[in-house]
Amino acid sequence: MQSPELQSKLESLVRVGVALSSVRDLDELLERILDEAMSLSSADGASLYLRKGEELEFHIAHNRSLEAKMGRTGMSLFYERFSMPISRQSMAGYCALTGKSLNFPDVQALPLDSGFQYNPSFDKRSGYFTHSMLTVPMSDRLGQCVGVLQLINSMDNGRITAFSPVSEMLVQAFAAQAGVALVNAQLDLDLKKAHQETLFRLSSAAEYRDKETSNHIKRMSHFSRILARDAGLTRDQVDMIFCSSPMHDVGKIGIPDHILQKPGKLTPEERVIMESHAVIGAHILKDSEVPVVRQAALVALTHHEKWDGTGYPRRLAGEAIPLEGRIVALADVYDALSSRRCYKEPWSEDRVQSFLVDQRGLHFDPALVDLFLAGMSEIRQIQSLYQDSDSDLEKLTDFSKIPIPEL
Amino acid sequence: MQSPELQSKLESLVRVGVALSSVRDLDELLERILDEAMSLSSADGASLYLRKGEELEFHIAHNRSLEAKMGRTGMSLFYERFSMPISRQSMAGYCALTGKSLNFPDVQALPLDSGFQYNPSFDKRSGYFTHSMLTVPMSDRLGQCVGVLQLINSMDNGRITAFSPVSEMLVQAFAAQAGVALVNAQLDLDLKKAHQETLFRLSSAAEYRDKETSNHIKRMSHFSRILARDAGLTRDQVDMIFCSSPMHDVGKIGIPDHILQKPGKLTPEERVIMESHAVIGAHILKDSEVPVVRQAALVALTHHEKWDGTGYPRRLAGEAIPLEGRIVALADVYDALSSRRCYKEPWSEDRVQSFLVDQRGLHFDPALVDLFLAGMSEIRQIQSLYQDSDSDLEKLTDFSKIPIPEL
Repeated sequence: MQSPELQSKLESLVRVGVALSSVRDLDELLERILDEAMSLSSADGASLYLRKGEELEFHIAHNRSLEAKMGRTGMSLFYERFSMPISRQSMAGYCALTGKSLNFPDVQALPLDSGFQYNPSFDKRSGYFTHSMLTVPMSDRLGQCVGVLQLINSMDNGRITAFSPVSEMLVQAFAAQAGVALVNAQLDLDLKKAHQETLFRLSSAAEYRDKETSNHIKRMSHFSRILARDAGLTRDQVDMIFCSSPMHDVGKIGIPDHILQKPGKLTPEERVIMESHAVIGAHILKDSEVPVVRQAALVALTHHEKWDGTGYPRRLAGEAIPLEGRIVALADVYDALSSRRCYKEPWSEDRVQSFLVDQRGLHFDPALVDLFLAGMSEIRQIQSLYQDSDSDLEKLTDFSKIPIPEL
Repeated sequence: MQSPELQSKLESLVRVGVALSSVRDLDELLERILDEAMSLSSADGASLYLRKGEELEFHIAHNRSLEAKMGRTGMSLFYERFSMPISRQSMAGYCALTGKSLNFPDVQALPLDSGFQYNPSFDKRSGYFTHSMLTVPMSDRLGQCVGVLQLINSMDNGRITAFSPVSEMLVQAFAAQAGVALVNAQLDLDLKKAHQETLFRLSSAAEYRDKETSNHIKRMSHFSRILARDAGLTRDQVDMIFCSSPMHDVGKIGIPDHILQKPGKLTPEERVIMESHAVIGAHILKDSEVPVVRQAALVALTHHEKWDGTGYPRRLAGEAIPLEGRIVALADVYDALSSRRCYKEPWSEDRVQSFLVDQRGLHFDPALVDLFLAGMSEIRQIQSLYQDSDSDLEKLTDFSKIPIPEL
């Protein structure tokens, strides 16, 4: 390759590095890495493996010829999720183990002393012919392998050629960028998970005083996320509702035991106190500079308003109720009715759905009721994922006998 | 510049891009950006501005000649934190406004039609002579300016020269990498802030039931952070204690009002129930996959153990008590004694310190007591930053009159 061509490739490498670093979503990043690596090396196909412990997990693959023939979806049928050990038994495993690349002009005719055998199962299933193959490890800054890129069939004017030394060098430099981007996306995901998990734990701590269970918080925040997404909000807005909705009842901490835990019906005076949890929640969360906490304050304040203006604390009606409040109102009530409590059996799905239809335009935003009913299959998945167990419903009675958990 | 030289510069640009993307701390990143930009362009000095709203804020600067003469610290005296509007009145403002770079071979002799005047105040204060100056905007992926890099006096064998077109191109490509890295560091910081803030809010929600104030949580978690740092823990460990310590009393949610809010002394039976908050907290937080929540469970369980083995719930002694638990025990008690509660006046600093000394090796880890007393100046700063106001101490009485906050 001539130097000006190398120069232009290096320039595109710089551009690609910038592009990669700005992708913070892991799935999107994996796609991007694969596409860019293929275009840098003129490869027809590629696979990406991520390290998990002492194994490499296959994540995604692309193949331009096969996709042209049968489309990406048809193509995806040829791939199976699988793992392989990090060892010298496979090319990808070898690269992960040693931190070195492998560049073979024709894997159908591997040198006997290479120590590798080509596994023809993919070619057999798909009718494809793999010849040249470049396998490159992706590492973090300390040289720890985080994944492996495998590029297949370098193309030159429609002919399959070997991957050139320059391609190998470019892909290696690119793999360093990809490695750091992967680590960053993973750290980002870890931080978001820690945030979400802490929110769930602290928000559901109330189960020790309340009649709710911790799975109620999980289910209703998933329902809220689904509704927000189906209402057409952006991904960031959807993520934010997922994080703010668990805090909707934080104000109940201010409600005295004798009212919060009263078995029977509340008196009008007690009801006033009970209803003040919306305002107390808003006080606990108000005046934050952090967007998710500001939204949580709004949700706490407005999740008992009703579409027809008969809710509390401000008797707002229709779109004067913030969308987040309308979403959480529906998600919260749906879960309360459809699950067991220590004082009631769960309602059947039919009965809860009839209730939503009855309250369409009265308690609930009619458009949200329609979206919710249209998305019931996903709602049922969440319900079966986060089922209450009997022990979730037991309340604390003997404080001297709480077992000390193993930590 | 010859093509091989450009090639090697481009290669280092790729390396630098990888290095930048792996720095997740904002201050470290700013230093790194400045150093790399100076070395890419052989500049003797550089300044970095970050955009804040419609202004550019000066953040850091380096100057190799001046630093060689008087050291970085001496040098830093010549810099003042200042802001300038994003407008055509200044070079940096112009670059931020237009997204274009400015490259002047000699700012002492600016062309009349340039529209700029060089402000000689820094040269006058420091005895330096600024000649060539390259000003380059740093943008996010959508082209929004996030900051400006200003490079001073390109050096060639000890002589000041103009910044070459190749240097300008390289710094522009680098500025794109720096822009994305800055955005990422900022997003990271935002996420951490959101996490911290949510923790503080939810953990201190208990103030509505308890005799604690929300500033207690802030102060004791800062004290814990300072102790962890002074005990020689890593930065990540210190950050984690800062995040886990606010949750130490989450188990109090399981304690009935009549015990938690009892004005006088507890009976032995009531004390058993009260002390169960450590175990309840561990139950609320146990079995998490998220490291900070796992640590919080451990802190909740062990923050009432005492060094001499007389604490609860497990009567652990000495180093059998996890360090996190020993740290939080000291931080929590110090703040409880030194601040006002609705039932007691604050102890004087002398009295609290004598108490710590008395309890050195009894209640508290002796090494931690020594570290705490040695770091009192920083402890006092935290106390004055998070002072309780009288309204923090008022408890909720009339539920029908809680004002609805403006959100």
